[in-house]
Amino acid sequence: MSTDPETMPGPEAGIDYNVLRDADDHISPLWLERLRAYLAAARDDDVATVMEPLHTSDVGDVLESLDADERLHLVRLLGDRFDYSALTEVDESVRVELMDELPNAEIARGVSGLDNDDAVAILEDMEQEDRDEVLAKLPTFERLSLKRSLDFPEDSAGRRMQTDFIAIPPFWTVGQTIDYLRSEPDLPDEFYQIYVVDASYQVLGTLPLDKFLRARRATSIEALMNTNLVLVDANEDQEEAARDFERYDLVEVGVIDESKRLVGVLTIDDIVDVIHEEADEDIKLLAGVGDEDISDATVDTVRSRAPWLAVNLVTAVAVSFVIGLFGATIDQMVALAVLMPIVASMGGNAGTQTMTVTVRALAMRELDGPRLRRLITREMVVGCANGVIFAILIGLVTWLRFNDPQLGVVIALAMVINLVVAGTAGILIPILLDRFKADPAIASAVFVTTITDMVGFFAFLGIAGLWFGLF
Amino acid sequence: MSTDPETMPGPEAGIDYNVLRDADDHISPLWLERLRAYLAAARDDDVATVMEPLHTSDVGDVLESLDADERLHLVRLLGDRFDYSALTEVDESVRVELMDELPNAEIARGVSGLDNDDAVAILEDMEQEDRDEVLAKLPTFERLSLKRSLDFPEDSAGRRMQTDFIAIPPFWTVGQTIDYLRSEPDLPDEFYQIYVVDASYQVLGTLPLDKFLRARRATSIEALMNTNLVLVDANEDQEEAARDFERYDLVEVGVIDESKRLVGVLTIDDIVDVIHEEADEDIKLLAGVGDEDISDATVDTVRSRAPWLAVNLVTAVAVSFVIGLFGATIDQMVALAVLMPIVASMGGNAGTQTMTVTVRALAMRELDGPRLRRLITREMVVGCANGVIFAILIGLVTWLRFNDPQLGVVIALAMVINLVVAGTAGILIPILLDRFKADPAIASAVFVTTITDMVGFFAFLGIAGLWFGLF
Repeated sequence: MSTDPETMPGPEAGIDYNVLRDADDHISPLWLERLRAYLAAARDDDVATVMEPLHTSDVGDVLESLDADERLHLVRLLGDRFDYSALTEVDESVRVELMDELPNAEIARGVSGLDNDDAVAILEDMEQEDRDEVLAKLPTFERLSLKRSLDFPEDSAGRRMQTDFIAIPPFWTVGQTIDYLRSEPDLPDEFYQIYVVDASYQVLGTLPLDKFLRARRATSIEALMNTNLVLVDANEDQEEAARDFERYDLVEVGVIDESKRLVGVLTIDDIVDVIHEEADEDIKLLAGVGDEDISDATVDTVRSRAPWLAVNLVTAVAVSFVIGLFGATIDQMVALAVLMPIVASMGGNAGTQTMTVTVRALAMRELDGPRLRRLITREMVVGCANGVIFAILIGLVTWLRFNDPQLGVVIALAMVINLVVAGTAGILIPILLDRFKADPAIASAVFVTTITDMVGFFAFLGIAGLWFGLF
Repeated sequence: MSTDPETMPGPEAGIDYNVLRDADDHISPLWLERLRAYLAAARDDDVATVMEPLHTSDVGDVLESLDADERLHLVRLLGDRFDYSALTEVDESVRVELMDELPNAEIARGVSGLDNDDAVAILEDMEQEDRDEVLAKLPTFERLSLKRSLDFPEDSAGRRMQTDFIAIPPFWTVGQTIDYLRSEPDLPDEFYQIYVVDASYQVLGTLPLDKFLRARRATSIEALMNTNLVLVDANEDQEEAARDFERYDLVEVGVIDESKRLVGVLTIDDIVDVIHEEADEDIKLLAGVGDEDISDATVDTVRSRAPWLAVNLVTAVAVSFVIGLFGATIDQMVALAVLMPIVASMGGNAGTQTMTVTVRALAMRELDGPRLRRLITREMVVGCANGVIFAILIGLVTWLRFNDPQLGVVIALAMVINLVVAGTAGILIPILLDRFKADPAIASAVFVTTITDMVGFFAFLGIAGLWFGLF
């Protein structure tokens, strides 16, 4: 298809370039093709016209669909007309790469005027030196406010918070507050509750907007406010804050500093991202993939995955030493080498099942004492039950295949042992890691499969050696 | 420790029974102990006193920490004072078990007056017959509204929606609307926007409360309303709706039926649960665990896990047939049996890494054409790079261990082949499953590890056989 914008087929050919997303909800190839043509022809007004109606998250998706040099070209071509908040919607690697290429002066112009939380999200991954240069170019008030947020630990509530909020004194009435809201030009873009504070900005109460709207003008704020406060410490981890949101169905929560002063607010849209990230992190850690995105560079991907593979290499070599103990046994009965991976593989699977349920229950704080005891009992029984079921199956298959009922009994015994061990390891390993303050999602899988491999090979080859007198 | 409430040590012993949660954020054992003692002594007023200040989600956690018979006892003891919305906060299996034990008349009394979405969540898992009996006991208006929600497909927006909302005509002013909100006693508990509808309840616009609060009384609603509408179809899957919430940072969205009439609203707190469930589902499916909770009964757990293990048994037996092809080869060189699981295990790991990244990218709709091509290229290169790195490592280890450089070369070659295959399978299998409309999270892991096992054993034993002339 032509990529010259002048000669591209148009609506008369039944092609509508204005549809942003295709049936699969991806950015439409046609739409992208037109944008690329405009970019290649440096038609900046046309580029601006097609980008202008997009929501920031759509702009983020468009950026991710473009190649690295096209992204840079798009941002530079749009200049003032590019809304930097779209950069909070792209993968970290895409953002960092773009920031690396853009001059600091341009970044400073872009983040100036953004919501505090968006600006922090853009600045926090930059090199210290570049970040300081960008901050130095910002107006004093913005610079101080951003610096303060960036001083809080990574992934803390203080980093994620929005510093724009509405705080009023308790002695106002509903009417006074409404008049204030109507006359004050400089309000946050979106807000869901109003904070009632004392002179030192300590929170006395909160007022959800819906309650507020239903009250008469003369009602005093103090009488109306909700004093059953849920507040979050700025140094608290964002995960903790997310749990509060989920537990108490919150939409917005106040963030306080060490001296209990209100310094910002967290809103649900930021928390939704946190919830997503955390679940994603668990999935990836369980699979031995670090904090990785599909847009990461190849070399970063190799670097992030190699350590996990290295650990697996060490454990696989250790497992092979277990097999090596039985070299003479295998030498006398080669069928053992053919069958031994079955026992190990079933154990690995059963162990992974139990481990995954345990890791998720730990992540969601579902395992208190009584529930933990119930879970351990259940997993033991499940391990035995599935052990017996699959022992009988594999025993019969082996008997028929090798025409040797005794070999069937040996593999069946090894299977029961390995599935019970798998259930036990699957639950105890994540719990032990959690007790020792390690993230159970990271290391559980390696430990569990190493144990089920070792026990699988050892039990099967050992029982076979004893049974057939091969030692 | 004593469980007689009269003789339990109290604050004078430095023990505070009033602290609900311990340092790990679990329900405190002390708090539970007191509740159990009250329950055992049937002191219903005391039970009510300690339960009364709890948030519904805390009540849910308490229920989950109790045993099945204690739960039932607690609910019956509290009677009218038990808030059924707490049942939406417990695992499905806990809820279903309780519903089974409670008389339908009591359930009808409990759900009557609940928010529509909470009542639906409680009723949707009941047996058809019991559910109809409960519905028949409800007031007509409630019954009809619940029946309508229950008629929408499972996991649809219509099932999750709240049917209470505020709709106003476009010709009102801000002042009229505020007066209406102040005078109308029967408003939803919480709301974040107001819907502007025509006479047939088609949505003309929405009004976020914060925008509304900032407007002067005389402003006409039509001039103020947001006409850039995001609405959700009641039959749409809740996952689709969740994506809209994430993409556009929504807090509340209107739900419309086939004739475009507004029938309800979805709020962010329900969507947060959906997001959590979906991520959780992916994690569990990848590990071969179905829709399973830690509170599921043992027999259900065995039943849900056995099919996955059965599939794994079949593939493990198939893999062992591949090894069986090389029985004579292994017979001549038993070191091959000792080393072969290393190649298979590394391939399984590398394949799982790529597969997990791909499955998550598919789930989050991140893989459009350009990004897919980039990802495939990247994974091929990563597979080659890690293949070469670990081929050299394992080659050296093998050489030293068996004092046989040739065996080192053989295992190194097999390792490169298997890691490249692992990368390819890890990306292509989930994508093919997705194209054929299967959930890539379900079946990818089995396919990928079967392929890496087969290729691992075949490549290693085959190359060894050729190299050493063992065929």
